[in-house]
Amino acid sequence: MNGVVEQLQASAAAAEIRRMKSLRPLVQCITNDVVQEVTANVLLACGMSPAMVPGLEECAEFARGAADALLCNVGTPNRENVQAMKLAAAAAADAGKPWTLDPVGAGGTAWRDKAIEELIALRPTVIRGNGSEILAAAGFEHRYKGVDSLDSSASALEAAQALAARSGSVVCVTGETDYVTDGRRTVSVSGGCAMVTLVVGTGCALSAMAAGFAAGASDPLASTAACCLLAKRAAERAGQTARAPGSFHNAYLDALYLLSPEEAAGLMSA
Amino acid sequence: MNGVVEQLQASAAAAEIRRMKSLRPLVQCITNDVVQEVTANVLLACGMSPAMVPGLEECAEFARGAADALLCNVGTPNRENVQAMKLAAAAAADAGKPWTLDPVGAGGTAWRDKAIEELIALRPTVIRGNGSEILAAAGFEHRYKGVDSLDSSASALEAAQALAARSGSVVCVTGETDYVTDGRRTVSVSGGCAMVTLVVGTGCALSAMAAGFAAGASDPLASTAACCLLAKRAAERAGQTARAPGSFHNAYLDALYLLSPEEAAGLMSA
Amino acid sequence: MNGVVEQLQASAAAAEIRRMKSLRPLVQCITNDVVQEVTANVLLACGMSPAMVPGLEECAEFARGAADALLCNVGTPNRENVQAMKLAAAAAADAGKPWTLDPVGAGGTAWRDKAIEELIALRPTVIRGNGSEILAAAGFEHRYKGVDSLDSSASALEAAQALAARSGSVVCVTGETDYVTDGRRTVSVSGGCAMVTLVVGTGCALSAMAAGFAAGASDPLASTAACCLLAKRAAERAGQTARAPGSFHNAYLDALYLLSPEEAAGLMSA
Repeated sequence: MNGVVEQLQASAAAAEIRRMKSLRPLVQCITNDVVQEVTANVLLACGMSPAMVPGLEECAEFARGAADALLCNVGTPNRENVQAMKLAAAAAADAGKPWTLDPVGAGGTAWRDKAIEELIALRPTVIRGNGSEILAAAGFEHRYKGVDSLDSSASALEAAQALAARSGSVVCVTGETDYVTDGRRTVSVSGGCAMVTLVVGTGCALSAMAAGFAAGASDPLASTAACCLLAKRAAERAGQTARAPGSFHNAYLDALYLLSPEEAAGLMSA
Repeated sequence: MNGVVEQLQASAAAAEIRRMKSLRPLVQCITNDVVQEVTANVLLACGMSPAMVPGLEECAEFARGAADALLCNVGTPNRENVQAMKLAAAAAADAGKPWTLDPVGAGGTAWRDKAIEELIALRPTVIRGNGSEILAAAGFEHRYKGVDSLDSSASALEAAQALAARSGSVVCVTGETDYVTDGRRTVSVSGGCAMVTLVVGTGCALSAMAAGFAAGASDPLASTAACCLLAKRAAERAGQTARAPGSFHNAYLDALYLLSPEEAAGLMSA
Repeated sequence: MNGVVEQLQASAAAAEIRRMKSLRPLVQCITNDVVQEVTANVLLACGMSPAMVPGLEECAEFARGAADALLCNVGTPNRENVQAMKLAAAAAADAGKPWTLDPVGAGGTAWRDKAIEELIALRPTVIRGNGSEILAAAGFEHRYKGVDSLDSSASALEAAQALAARSGSVVCVTGETDYVTDGRRTVSVSGGCAMVTLVVGTGCALSAMAAGFAAGASDPLASTAACCLLAKRAAERAGQTARAPGSFHNAYLDALYLLSPEEAAGLMSA
């Protein structure tokens, strides 16, 4: 049993979004080769500053210094970039800055799963993945097909709660409904548009947004849920005009930019 | 002389497209730094699952295991990623899975040409390039200007046939008319829209699509020709609304998503 | 004091744009991981041929041979790609070809600043950056926040002039007004649209355009100013229809493609 799942409070969500926009956090990203551009554009659209700083030679200095938050995404891992993630994550933690892990493709290969395990041991502030990835990262039974999830977020909720309890991280499993949990409390966010799954990088970019939302947050569970809400509202709005993934991509960026905190939270109609 | 060039049969093409969409192949891509996002989005739009898995540490395990097909693209080659392509190609072949080679920029530098030759020796299921690239890969006289082809596909047909006969691969040379040949049979696909040449990655993404089309295909020549047909019809449809490359990019993705197999094959009006 | 700042002459700018379009330069790019696709698409849209050739194994051969101009961009630097930039820049200079340096994120980390200094010592034809980057590269006081500039271009004009005098490069500092200087003459280009700062890679792509504009130019200061003018006019045109960054991205590419040299220079209404 998964305990009581709370609904996200609209006014609290609006406050988190306003706080993020006023901070305009600088989010350092060590992410995969595929989604660099869309990740940067998503961060810019919703009011953050992206900084892709993956180089071994400077990633830790940057995490300790200029960055407000860090994203580590293992979508195209190799020995060197996993090493960079570990150095940067340790530096961020040491400097009291939040960092997010996106365990892309967990369950795909043994080598990748080991890298993910080692990163979870460094205790991310937030872990964000789809159903299959969170099941795999938690060591539960799962199905694998590249970046597509064959497991619903609901079917991964128990795994998310277990992973949160074990790791000390807030765990966010996204899908038709998003669930955000710290192992004790669980908040759900519903809505969105299925077409996000046909635009590469929307999930990876959400993990980067979650890092920025965690910067300066008093409650990473609340900031992550507000982050999910903003993304779901933007996807809904994009889905109102776009009926295919090429158009949807731009409409999603536009909506992230145009939605006010109050509109995103449903306190005002968009 | 190039022998008889057949026209692609509409009903056979529709059947190949239906087969691909029903399989929803997981296409492992080891591709260049420039086109990762557009390649993934093209695969998603036409009903495939992309998986960019280039890391030396996991590329062979993935090719042998989860992947249905593999793309190797030498657009931004270096010692390490060429080594990854060789390992993954050997693993794919060993596991009975098709793989496609895109000899991007063949003829550009001596080092790249050597890498292409070594990959051809591993016998790709399909080799896909523009006129200049296929001429260069076949060892014929050619002209070079980066990713632009200065040689028409028709002028490279004889080279394509010679390369197919020598390599044992199906060779696909694309341009105003696409030609697909195994050295004995040659099929042509015409139509399309010249604006595809102003959107980076459309050719590279076509090679990735060809890998997915070859997964589970009984006849790689037929599956590759059907793949070219789908791309040409999508480009035509995009060209009907978009008059410049920014708009065209999204319209092309939209058309790949919206065209039914019957519309793409011309059995039904789009 | 910054001396007299000249206005760019419309007829001279139109002539530079016509010259570039007629040459259709092949621009070799060694650029960062984030902006590869947008850079290639911008070059294609304005009539150039992109060639991303960053590999240590072939970058110098390509710079000496096929390329008409070279871009070096340190947005995601590591030991290997900085080494590739140095080899390619030396080869380009040796072969009498222009090259552009984009000091992305100057002032961000000590390691990056050292790499930028070493590249400036190789005497780029053009150095292009935003206010904060040019201040940092010139060794002036500056503020840092990732790819966002917290310093206006006007506040960096003196630094740009000092950097030009010291390096022997044309220095271009972009922002609300763009300034192009060789340390003695300074030309300004105004206009544009603030939304370019919300689409990642527009600045990086401008540096690549500047490399192509410098190919075959008798006066790199004039060619760089014409390049800035084309970009500013395209941004204005995009801003007329797009009110958010997703739409703006494509509208900008469309405008770069559709604007004639005479329209860009203001000799004819667009």
